[in-house]
Amino acid sequence: MQKGPLHFYFDFSSPYSYIASEWVDAVAARHGRRVQWHAILLGVTFQVAELKPQIEHPLKRDYAFRDFARSAAFAGLPYQQPARFPIATQNAARVFWWLHETQGAAAAVAWARAGLRAYFTRGVSLDDPAQLKALAAESGLDADAAEQAWSDPVWKDKLKTVNSAAIAAGVFGAPYFLIDGEAFWGNDRQAQIERWLATGPFKGLV
Amino acid sequence: MQKGPLHFYFDFSSPYSYIASEWVDAVAARHGRRVQWHAILLGVTFQVAELKPQIEHPLKRDYAFRDFARSAAFAGLPYQQPARFPIATQNAARVFWWLHETQGAAAAVAWARAGLRAYFTRGVSLDDPAQLKALAAESGLDADAAEQAWSDPVWKDKLKTVNSAAIAAGVFGAPYFLIDGEAFWGNDRQAQIERWLATGPFKGLV
Repeated sequence: MQKGPLHFYFDFSSPYSYIASEWVDAVAARHGRRVQWHAILLGVTFQVAELKPQIEHPLKRDYAFRDFARSAAFAGLPYQQPARFPIATQNAARVFWWLHETQGAAAAVAWARAGLRAYFTRGVSLDDPAQLKALAAESGLDADAAEQAWSDPVWKDKLKTVNSAAIAAGVFGAPYFLIDGEAFWGNDRQAQIERWLATGPFKGLV
Repeated sequence: MQKGPLHFYFDFSSPYSYIASEWVDAVAARHGRRVQWHAILLGVTFQVAELKPQIEHPLKRDYAFRDFARSAAFAGLPYQQPARFPIATQNAARVFWWLHETQGAAAAVAWARAGLRAYFTRGVSLDDPAQLKALAAESGLDADAAEQAWSDPVWKDKLKTVNSAAIAAGVFGAPYFLIDGEAFWGNDRQAQIERWLATGPFKGLV
């Protein structure tokens, strides 16, 4: 029987999404799964869940910045805290869905990787139209077509639909993972995800 | 040179504190450290940090309960979600500090383990004076003396002082760990803590 995909929800402005994006395909592949990537807007899920970003909590702020960098280093990844953080990511996400629907999942995932790496290792501000166009060109895309896509009501609507579907599926943060209906939230659930893929529900879990 | 202690901050009503309490001594010992346990009141740190319990966030609630049980199972520990949750833990924490100051750290840690296990595997409500007294007796303590201790202004003040010191040290949640000034928050930082103890700051971390 074909195993279902591992659903991976991410936001282009989420440091832990960046870290998870670098391991999720390999972990899934080790267990015969493909990954279905979903670009979402964390701000929308936060509103629904009555949450706010970690760095807006006074005591948590310094810790959060330290943990972003430390968790990336722990994973062996380059990381540079963007000066502008967090940023609006709807344009980057619309380009993701435009690529997904017109060129296929692989093209969309390549764009996701390019965006996350550009923002979290080089500080490329994905909310700045000029920088986003330059990144699109650098990534081998038609930059004008990308700009048209993120301004197009079709892709604005697509992103809204995707966000609503994510919220309906229980997604309240990023990165968020769904494996056969089992939800895992956070880059720090990597070890649990890996074991779940290998063995299914843990012994003793009802 | 003698290595400094690993500081472990926990609340008797925190599921992730319970899980961490079961591995923290072994992990520290593997790297030549002792653990200094601190019973704190999470509610107080939450107020200062403008946080609230995960289960008070609508979308997060179901996930949180699932993750408590799953994380315990992942760690190979018994877990039974207490029907009364969360509970006020100041009496259990005052008994901890009373033991700590009058009988030493080992007696306090034994009480911490007894309390966490009783609450999270048998649903013993530590906020109920009768149940707390019974647990004290069961743990080999003088139950009347324990009750006197949790009503005594001396131990009330001690807990307040400890909480203030924790907040001053940046503690905003539980479990919380401090290793030579490096802060780690959450049971899910176990792998990072272990590597940090083994190697110090991760490569690439400024």
